[in-house]
Amino acid sequence: MSDALSNVEFLDTDPGNIGGDKVPLYIIKIGGNVIDDEVKLLSFIKEFAAITGNKILVHGGGKMATRVAESMGISQQMVEGRRITDAETLKVVTMVYAGYINKNITAQLQAAGCNAIGLSGADANVIRAHKRVHPVTDYGFAGDVDNVNAVFIQQLLVQDIALVLCPITHDANGLLLNTNADTIAQEVAKAMSAFYEVSLIYCFEKPGVLMDAEDDSSVIQKIDLESFVALKGKNIISAGMIPKLQNAFTALEAGVQNIRIGHADQLRQLVNRQSGTSIVNE
Amino acid sequence: MSDALSNVEFLDTDPGNIGGDKVPLYIIKIGGNVIDDEVKLLSFIKEFAAITGNKILVHGGGKMATRVAESMGISQQMVEGRRITDAETLKVVTMVYAGYINKNITAQLQAAGCNAIGLSGADANVIRAHKRVHPVTDYGFAGDVDNVNAVFIQQLLVQDIALVLCPITHDANGLLLNTNADTIAQEVAKAMSAFYEVSLIYCFEKPGVLMDAEDDSSVIQKIDLESFVALKGKNIISAGMIPKLQNAFTALEAGVQNIRIGHADQLRQLVNRQSGTSIVNE
Repeated sequence: MSDALSNVEFLDTDPGNIGGDKVPLYIIKIGGNVIDDEVKLLSFIKEFAAITGNKILVHGGGKMATRVAESMGISQQMVEGRRITDAETLKVVTMVYAGYINKNITAQLQAAGCNAIGLSGADANVIRAHKRVHPVTDYGFAGDVDNVNAVFIQQLLVQDIALVLCPITHDANGLLLNTNADTIAQEVAKAMSAFYEVSLIYCFEKPGVLMDAEDDSSVIQKIDLESFVALKGKNIISAGMIPKLQNAFTALEAGVQNIRIGHADQLRQLVNRQSGTSIVNE
Repeated sequence: MSDALSNVEFLDTDPGNIGGDKVPLYIIKIGGNVIDDEVKLLSFIKEFAAITGNKILVHGGGKMATRVAESMGISQQMVEGRRITDAETLKVVTMVYAGYINKNITAQLQAAGCNAIGLSGADANVIRAHKRVHPVTDYGFAGDVDNVNAVFIQQLLVQDIALVLCPITHDANGLLLNTNADTIAQEVAKAMSAFYEVSLIYCFEKPGVLMDAEDDSSVIQKIDLESFVALKGKNIISAGMIPKLQNAFTALEAGVQNIRIGHADQLRQLVNRQSGTSIVNE
């Protein structure tokens, strides 16, 4: 009986920990450019499905949300690359992210033989957030993450179910909130790193962080905080890359060991640490 | 050790069965009229949250889907009360059912203190269907249910999580399908009745099946198949009620014992079997 009981306790407290070594968990974020291209998305989904073991896919979808909003006559306001989420826009992003994109990716994963479940932050209270308070800009229904339900996520992963997370969270008071997908990936990586050896991979339309934005062969193989600050100071790192790297360094500081930024076409190489830019400690 | 092991086996095979008696499971279906009225919906959600024990909410939302389709310039075609789901309409219903409605209900349940998870059929392969083949009408991307993943549903229920099911299914080959919500409720009730004492409750905008469609006090308290056929023959049962009752009798034949049709405002009384029309064997 002691064997059976210790096994139960082991599952409750640390299911990722087998024989002292944490088992791997891949958290992959994809953005709008891949999602918008049906052929590339399908190829990406097949590569994701082929990853062995525990995996979570976090998706955005801003470009599609903008198109749907336009077709419904809802104008979109952006401040410094971030969407201002008014009440009508919240409806649109909830429909597009939690509905269309999330369910299509989940159905394609099922077709690729990968059992998957698509969730928003409201589902099983997976990601709780609060409405952003900002001294200057009113971002509307934008959410900053307070808590990730790591226990429930584990319960799905141990059943060999991949999670597909959309960037819609909730405040536990009935309000849905629009949350940056890069941030969702970072927060989930932080929460899960207590139980798993997390690899956090940001996929986008470039092969990594570039020394020269016009030259795809100028990938920086490793970047630490000091060089990030220096390159930012010299305007070598582009505006769009800055929040992505800030998210990556926040995850690194919180103990996420393997963080990589690279091209969505090279998911397999990114998983094998043979491509992209690695975010490292000094 | 034998105690611990028999307990595990018991959980795997029949978690609804405690001491020989099946535990109750309430499967509640709400339709478009409640969903469209924010005040009524919130009140309904609070009553649903107050139900003790295992519960599943199945929702439609056709009226909102029609409005969103119109605002996007997508025309809707209906044949005998059923929507023809062309490719553009499939996008809309996926956004509205699986996104907007499903996540808002789930967030409101969380706010009401009820841990809930919103799912489509693609999520964890909960409901698999096939594209409808019909000799006369091409219903487009309409799905007829093949399988309900009762084991996964149980695993959520035993964690005291309520399920919120939207009427979007998948075919396991990557296709999402639009499925009648009354049918989803019936199919899930049938599948779960092997493990639970299922109460299937259809909520709509009338207090039950009426002898006189204009008189809300003419509720038929009990109806069996024979009287249904007789009343249908005399045109006493309205056109909109016929598919609902057909679904109910299909569930009854398959072994679902407690089936009731009534007003969404009276959920508590319906749960307590003090309101609505009861669907019974002869």
